[in-house]
Amino acid sequence: MPAISQKGQSMPQSPIRKLVPFAEQAYKDGKTVYHLNIGQPDIKTPQVALDAVKVHSLDILAYTRSEGSEGYRKKIADYYEKNDIHVNHDDIIVTTGGSEALLFAFGSIMDVDDEVIIPEPFYANYNGFSTASGVKVVPVISKIEDNFALPAIEEFEKLITPKTKAILICNPGNPTGYLYSKEEIKKLADIVKKHDLFLIADEVYREFAYDGAKHYSILQEEGLEDYAIVIDSVSKRYSMCGARIGCLVSKSKEVIATALKFAQARLSPPTLAQIASEAALQTPQSYFDEVIEEYVERRNVLIEELSKIEGVKVAKPKGAFYCIAELPVKNADKFAQWLLESFDVNKETIMVAPAAGFYSTPGVGLNQIRIAYVLNKDSLIKAVNILKEALKVYKD
Amino acid sequence: MPAISQKGQSMPQSPIRKLVPFAEQAYKDGKTVYHLNIGQPDIKTPQVALDAVKVHSLDILAYTRSEGSEGYRKKIADYYEKNDIHVNHDDIIVTTGGSEALLFAFGSIMDVDDEVIIPEPFYANYNGFSTASGVKVVPVISKIEDNFALPAIEEFEKLITPKTKAILICNPGNPTGYLYSKEEIKKLADIVKKHDLFLIADEVYREFAYDGAKHYSILQEEGLEDYAIVIDSVSKRYSMCGARIGCLVSKSKEVIATALKFAQARLSPPTLAQIASEAALQTPQSYFDEVIEEYVERRNVLIEELSKIEGVKVAKPKGAFYCIAELPVKNADKFAQWLLESFDVNKETIMVAPAAGFYSTPGVGLNQIRIAYVLNKDSLIKAVNILKEALKVYKD
Repeated sequence: MPAISQKGQSMPQSPIRKLVPFAEQAYKDGKTVYHLNIGQPDIKTPQVALDAVKVHSLDILAYTRSEGSEGYRKKIADYYEKNDIHVNHDDIIVTTGGSEALLFAFGSIMDVDDEVIIPEPFYANYNGFSTASGVKVVPVISKIEDNFALPAIEEFEKLITPKTKAILICNPGNPTGYLYSKEEIKKLADIVKKHDLFLIADEVYREFAYDGAKHYSILQEEGLEDYAIVIDSVSKRYSMCGARIGCLVSKSKEVIATALKFAQARLSPPTLAQIASEAALQTPQSYFDEVIEEYVERRNVLIEELSKIEGVKVAKPKGAFYCIAELPVKNADKFAQWLLESFDVNKETIMVAPAAGFYSTPGVGLNQIRIAYVLNKDSLIKAVNILKEALKVYKD
Repeated sequence: MPAISQKGQSMPQSPIRKLVPFAEQAYKDGKTVYHLNIGQPDIKTPQVALDAVKVHSLDILAYTRSEGSEGYRKKIADYYEKNDIHVNHDDIIVTTGGSEALLFAFGSIMDVDDEVIIPEPFYANYNGFSTASGVKVVPVISKIEDNFALPAIEEFEKLITPKTKAILICNPGNPTGYLYSKEEIKKLADIVKKHDLFLIADEVYREFAYDGAKHYSILQEEGLEDYAIVIDSVSKRYSMCGARIGCLVSKSKEVIATALKFAQARLSPPTLAQIASEAALQTPQSYFDEVIEEYVERRNVLIEELSKIEGVKVAKPKGAFYCIAELPVKNADKFAQWLLESFDVNKETIMVAPAAGFYSTPGVGLNQIRIAYVLNKDSLIKAVNILKEALKVYKD
């Protein structure tokens, strides 16, 4: 039989996937599993979005424009305007999730063997998109001791080669929960201008900034018009991950014109989901206020409970709904498997994401896990208690 | 400013796109434009699919499994069974349109600079997916004189190199309307087995086989289990192009396991569209009978009317809803532009797709156009009349 590709062989598996069979077995064994491993929020989708598709009057479920319908893009531009981000609808290409926006960005600015510098730990699928696009991720390590702040500029500059085409950040960060300050964004702006690189910012968690901090978009930074590419998505903002609607935003006409060619090849983003996403833009501010309040409370409970466990170190997130915790274990991967396979407290256990998959430097983050606080407070307290009891008896 | 990629620069534009501004101007000038250029059918989407999303009971529009929900994949397997194609739900990965299925197939079996042989003229976006994937299209010319039948096996074998990884066919064909016979599929099966290549078949027009002919899938060919990859889509079958739901089907466990890694990186196909697509599987046979009857009548009218025009040569399609016509002009691209810009019959004109974009051999097909018979018969008759009148006066 013919061989599959090298690319296909090197496509990384998500750090959670290999645990799925163990979770399924745990369920079969009658255990309850608290899922701290996934970014699927339990928050309700705004009713206005859910209702919009119920009253559609389509006779033919037809293609939209490849860049998304003009009406929807104009409303997205309004949304940005309300967030003090000044873009026109022509600066926006609607994509099938933030995932596709990243693929279009990579394809538009990088060729095979080109390099993109990414502070790690980073969203694990950046590895997949890089492999699929044939480009190389060059990690710059950010540290739990620094709360995962932006690494020093010198650390970036050490890594820049003629093959470097871009720096990619996730702000606020998955999996770190770190929110970059205006000053940090300005530092990044300086590097990319100095070295003529693109700056890609995955800002899908924009609304999830806590403790009064305000998100500063790379699109707000003056002089960055030719360099900045924003990846966005409705998935987390409106708890509608299944819509698969995102967008790519750039003031660079060349980037947009190029990304549009990729968009045209795949014809159009999903029509029904655009209807829901356009309606979601009417979501009242009260929805976000409640959601943010809920996440802050969850975060506070989570961090407080985790801090009580001896040997556990945790970076306090300032945004998104993830945190990285360092555990007193050698190999968090084995520990995560053991939690599902061999441990329970009154028939309840937890599923966590081993953090090694969020690093591309081998051997780093082996004793860390990512916790998504997408469960209600009571469940979080129970889940952290299970972690605590587990660490008491676990031997590695 | 930083430069965009070579890949982005070489991404081809669809053969229709450059005509869009001329069409828009024509509308502004008060002309009616008959669109013979696009594959967006005017056929109604089955009501059962449109209704399914109206009665959804979702609270959270969540991700589905990356490979598509198990329930939906089991029903797709039943659909194949009814079509005498024996596959299991585990052989299926649900994708965001046939487009994504092709990208996953290319990524799973080809590396940069690998080659895929495609009979031309072919669906223009194969060029885009190849460029995006960094692979090379090697065309083998099929001829209008032969009705675009499968080129001789020797023509394929001449083109096979150590870099060749696959042969890709579209059956029935866009833009040719050609339906490969069982014998032709068997010939292709022999070549791929002999040279250890994959055979990818884009079978999205499966139901659109006319004059009593029966579509023969590569998945029905015994002994091809390790070689065959089918690309499928709900777009044309149920006139729901905007759903963006397709699938990749293969009996090769390795191909499926590899494609699944690409699927996991982009998380999941759109949830609402899967609801509509699952419901669409309940579409009664009477819907297809009516649709096929309608397309056959349109085709007959179209071919009959085209044949009456002096100097026009047309291949009679046996499937899908396209045909290629050779015109007595030197450059169909300029002619198509002229039709929009400078010609009308009683303020009515037509938009056609110049066929050169469906070839990758430069200079071939320059005097051909693709006509999509996605308009009702009266409109088709008017449109062909406009073509006839235009050819009387056009000078190039």
